[in-house]
Amino acid sequence: MVKENEVPASLEWRVNMPSGSSRILAPESRQTCRFFSRFQNLVTGIVLNIKDFFEKAWTLAVNEPKKVIHCLKVGLALSIVSVFYYMKPLYDGVGGNAMWAVMTVVVVFEYTVGSTLYKCVNRAIGTCLAGSLGIGVHWVASQAGDKFEPVILQASVFLLAAAATFSRFIPTIKARFDYGAMIFILTFSLVSVSGYRVDKLVELAHERVSTIAIGASICILITMILCPVWAGTELHHLISSNLEKLADSLEGYAAENFILDSSNHSNEKDSSKRLQGYKCVLNSKAGEESMANFARWEPAHGKFNFRHPWKQYLKVGASMRSCAYCIETLHGGINSNTETPEFLKKPLNDICMRLGTSSSKVLKELSSMIKMMKNSTKLDILVDEMNSSVEGLQNALKTFPSYQHIPTPDPATDEPPNGTKEPSLKPIALSLMEIVQMATLTSLLVEIASRIEGIVEEVKELATQAEFRDESSKKSKQTQTKLNGNDSNEHEVTMTTVQKV
Amino acid sequence: MVKENEVPASLEWRVNMPSGSSRILAPESRQTCRFFSRFQNLVTGIVLNIKDFFEKAWTLAVNEPKKVIHCLKVGLALSIVSVFYYMKPLYDGVGGNAMWAVMTVVVVFEYTVGSTLYKCVNRAIGTCLAGSLGIGVHWVASQAGDKFEPVILQASVFLLAAAATFSRFIPTIKARFDYGAMIFILTFSLVSVSGYRVDKLVELAHERVSTIAIGASICILITMILCPVWAGTELHHLISSNLEKLADSLEGYAAENFILDSSNHSNEKDSSKRLQGYKCVLNSKAGEESMANFARWEPAHGKFNFRHPWKQYLKVGASMRSCAYCIETLHGGINSNTETPEFLKKPLNDICMRLGTSSSKVLKELSSMIKMMKNSTKLDILVDEMNSSVEGLQNALKTFPSYQHIPTPDPATDEPPNGTKEPSLKPIALSLMEIVQMATLTSLLVEIASRIEGIVEEVKELATQAEFRDESSKKSKQTQTKLNGNDSNEHEVTMTTVQKV
Repeated sequence: MVKENEVPASLEWRVNMPSGSSRILAPESRQTCRFFSRFQNLVTGIVLNIKDFFEKAWTLAVNEPKKVIHCLKVGLALSIVSVFYYMKPLYDGVGGNAMWAVMTVVVVFEYTVGSTLYKCVNRAIGTCLAGSLGIGVHWVASQAGDKFEPVILQASVFLLAAAATFSRFIPTIKARFDYGAMIFILTFSLVSVSGYRVDKLVELAHERVSTIAIGASICILITMILCPVWAGTELHHLISSNLEKLADSLEGYAAENFILDSSNHSNEKDSSKRLQGYKCVLNSKAGEESMANFARWEPAHGKFNFRHPWKQYLKVGASMRSCAYCIETLHGGINSNTETPEFLKKPLNDICMRLGTSSSKVLKELSSMIKMMKNSTKLDILVDEMNSSVEGLQNALKTFPSYQHIPTPDPATDEPPNGTKEPSLKPIALSLMEIVQMATLTSLLVEIASRIEGIVEEVKELATQAEFRDESSKKSKQTQTKLNGNDSNEHEVTMTTVQKV
Repeated sequence: MVKENEVPASLEWRVNMPSGSSRILAPESRQTCRFFSRFQNLVTGIVLNIKDFFEKAWTLAVNEPKKVIHCLKVGLALSIVSVFYYMKPLYDGVGGNAMWAVMTVVVVFEYTVGSTLYKCVNRAIGTCLAGSLGIGVHWVASQAGDKFEPVILQASVFLLAAAATFSRFIPTIKARFDYGAMIFILTFSLVSVSGYRVDKLVELAHERVSTIAIGASICILITMILCPVWAGTELHHLISSNLEKLADSLEGYAAENFILDSSNHSNEKDSSKRLQGYKCVLNSKAGEESMANFARWEPAHGKFNFRHPWKQYLKVGASMRSCAYCIETLHGGINSNTETPEFLKKPLNDICMRLGTSSSKVLKELSSMIKMMKNSTKLDILVDEMNSSVEGLQNALKTFPSYQHIPTPDPATDEPPNGTKEPSLKPIALSLMEIVQMATLTSLLVEIASRIEGIVEEVKELATQAEFRDESSKKSKQTQTKLNGNDSNEHEVTMTTVQKV
């Protein structure tokens, strides 16, 4: 009954609003209704927003289960630390040592193993360095007498804090010890501010270091044992998948623009998503750099050694970006209102299609080469194919004339002197405008091919540095071992290579 | 004397090394010398490295004095906090409250005002939210009896830590409340781990909040009063200077490629630096986004209101990057071995030069428009000029034939029927290869011009949203006020506009 009353009431209120007099006639309950309806709208809005938020979160969780696992790991690490302090008698409230272990876990536990290790090592180094320096300064200050003690302490805090803060701006320090510098400032200030005597400080420092060690080791254990997310592996996959995305964009572009009667437009959404793949590469620099920074802290894992050439990945990334800029320009569209004449378009389209496809094949081969971490025998063949497509295109450009035989409507025009039997056809020169679009397209494709060669160089360098396996090494070396039984050294190499996979 | 002995000894040692026998002949003192020389080398290496490091640091300090000032500000803030606790009787050692103020200063004090405010607000919200929730959970747990208390506490820590960690992955939360979520986890865990009774907890929370407030307010005061570095201003300058860099690159490219007899190669280093300016724009996305995020937290300052449209700067940045990709392709060089024939090159060069210069002028005008924050009357004229250059180029392309009149060596060829008096010239069609380079260049320039129009749109939108002053508003409005004395409203507008400057 209440619901039935509400609907006409709120309807009437809306109709009556414009005239002031009718408003007085509205009964008391209508004002309540109005308020109620506004409140309802507000609540509905909030509920919708929250629903929307949770839907987004749910999509994120479904798409990236690794992140959900990370969250559970953080929860687990904190639970373990708190259980530890519930059980242990050394626990003495928030102000005491428990705090440092909890704080270490919260601050240090990061998504990847590399960043967790980076923070742990930095925290340890920063704390120890600042702690010992702080105790030293404290001792010096206490020897200087009551008058100078606060002056020395203040001055040391000011100078060291300023110097450590400045060091965080220096790129080499920032990349490796940014967090450590912050912890240094924190610890040094805390030690200086404290009014304890030196012997008491040493005892305190010992306790604190041990609690930090407990927190840090719990973090390291959990992050490395339970579904570890290695920064190195992530970087490796990112580079490999970005190469594939570039290849897809290029292939998609070729398929869309060079196949004149493209009949299979069935999955347009999917193809446009593939076409846009190069966009991921354009802005990947920051992500790649931070991953490479963290990867350096990681121990050997999976297929990667401790001294895996992570820096070379950055070079591959840079050459990929340079190629992506060109693809972006290509996709941006070459704005010319004049269409290329059909007689040029058809043959050139075929050659461009071949170049686009062969370039994309090279990129795909590079991607799978990185993914599998083995040298490709096909790569050189594919690069040769791409280069011969480039040559083919350049030859075609050289031989194609920039005029067109069209029927002559004007009979007054002179006939060719060599007595051709097609008197109605005459070479008419094209204007540059008619050629410009095709010319740009071809030279961008050639430029892309040359930049892909840059990527090939960098990936080959990576293959050398990271000692990628030879594709045929297993087979050939096994036969070699059979033939040459005493070559135990090579046999070992083969075995370790096989084991690593 | 010692020095004189050392030199031949170390020289002899180097000469004798290859043969094993001579080594035995070396007297005892030589081995010491060898060790000493190695040690010396090591020390020299370390000293050189340190010298190098300090030289780099010095260069950084000289180039960016703002960063040095920031370091001094951090030192000052820490000194003030420690003095505060030296004076106050509420100070009771490291474990007590002093720690929280010091920690707040170290962790919260950032380079820009915006990031400091972001961290302060986040820390405050996170601490309060987690503190009250923690006390609530503690109360519930204490009511549930001794058996269930640890279970409830553990479960709540696990669930809330996992949920808060997950929220940090959601982009909207990450952009605004990443730090707050971390502080939430920290505070909630600390409260839960603590074994205090609820009333003791409330007292403790009160103390802690007040110390955090002291630390945060010292940070905010110092960061805002002493040479403040506003994230918004930095973003504003970055966008404006990036526009100028793009203009310089384009202008430099035009000057280098279209002026055939460029005689002023005097300052090549400077010009190549200017040419490379576009590279700064390519990877500026991450920096721009973080600055815009922090700028939102800043109060009105200088020429900027509290609700200044920082998001629009990101759009300008994106359109600039899209233009920079094209310039990168242009600079990358269009690889064609065949030179464009001179008869085409000269007239097209002139038109391309005009287009390059007019595009660069538009970019410079946009840059100064943003820098001065006033609408430009010249902008539309410059854009029209650029568009007419584009049209000129396109017309030239339409009218230029793709053939060349060259002297005919073959006398058998037919003469033109209209009885021209130049019988030795004949139109010879160019191959596409000869045109391709020029064609690509022109269409890239046209594409750049069209992308510059995109930047113009975004900057105009920014001018509307940020209410840029009209260049002539001051003059014209003052005369209007004189003419129309009672138009006080407009007068006020003029006054506030003038005051803002």
